[in-house]
Amino acid sequence: MSDDHAAIRDLVQGWVDAIQSRDLDGVLAGHAEDIVMFDVPPPYDGVRGITAYRECWEPFFDYIAGGAFFDLVDLDITAGDRVAYAHALLRCGTPVELTARPALRLRLTLGLRKHDGRWLVAHEHHSFPLS
Amino acid sequence: MSDDHAAIRDLVQGWVDAIQSRDLDGVLAGHAEDIVMFDVPPPYDGVRGITAYRECWEPFFDYIAGGAFFDLVDLDITAGDRVAYAHALLRCGTPVELTARPALRLRLTLGLRKHDGRWLVAHEHHSFPLS
Repeated sequence: MSDDHAAIRDLVQGWVDAIQSRDLDGVLAGHAEDIVMFDVPPPYDGVRGITAYRECWEPFFDYIAGGAFFDLVDLDITAGDRVAYAHALLRCGTPVELTARPALRLRLTLGLRKHDGRWLVAHEHHSFPLS
Repeated sequence: MSDDHAAIRDLVQGWVDAIQSRDLDGVLAGHAEDIVMFDVPPPYDGVRGITAYRECWEPFFDYIAGGAFFDLVDLDITAGDRVAYAHALLRCGTPVELTARPALRLRLTLGLRKHDGRWLVAHEHHSFPLS
């Protein structure tokens, strides 16, 4: 594994760990000021900027506090010199939701940029398949 | 605009144009053999490989033939030396669907790799927000 792949894997796993422990500073630590997130719920044109991104997490932390899982199942990274992307599958849902649909996965795509030797997440796209 | 940005913009617009004209060879022309697509419908873990990707388009072409729109509204590209990503918003739906929800957008994220000087799409993530 290249240094870039290892750094990005650590960044993504750290972000997942921070979500699981409802640590907002940890969730934001590796993110760019101009982050654009396509989240599961609206707005239709995305959540734009770190302030709007920060405000999305409180309701999701309530969901985690209620017993929902948010576990990284699969992560695939493609990294160049200063731009990278990654796609991932996560087991995300309450025990009741996951008992009903055990194979359901949250699909996640990340866009990353390297600044001063450090990777930052500048884009996130989260979705569940419609079925 | 850099040469890479211009090439990627042309690739994405060409792909949209090919979808609108139900030109399957055109849809596939700029895609990698190992494409991973997170599509609006299942499978939960994504459509993997160009053969599976090809098979997804026939039902969508029927939707286009029935009068649905698939128009690029916004495209934002981040390109490095040999890896790039892009996020986009598309106006996608039938006239009836878009009259009911005119602001609804299909959210699209692309991951791209450069091979022998030519950009190829290696990842696509399509979704509608859940609301």
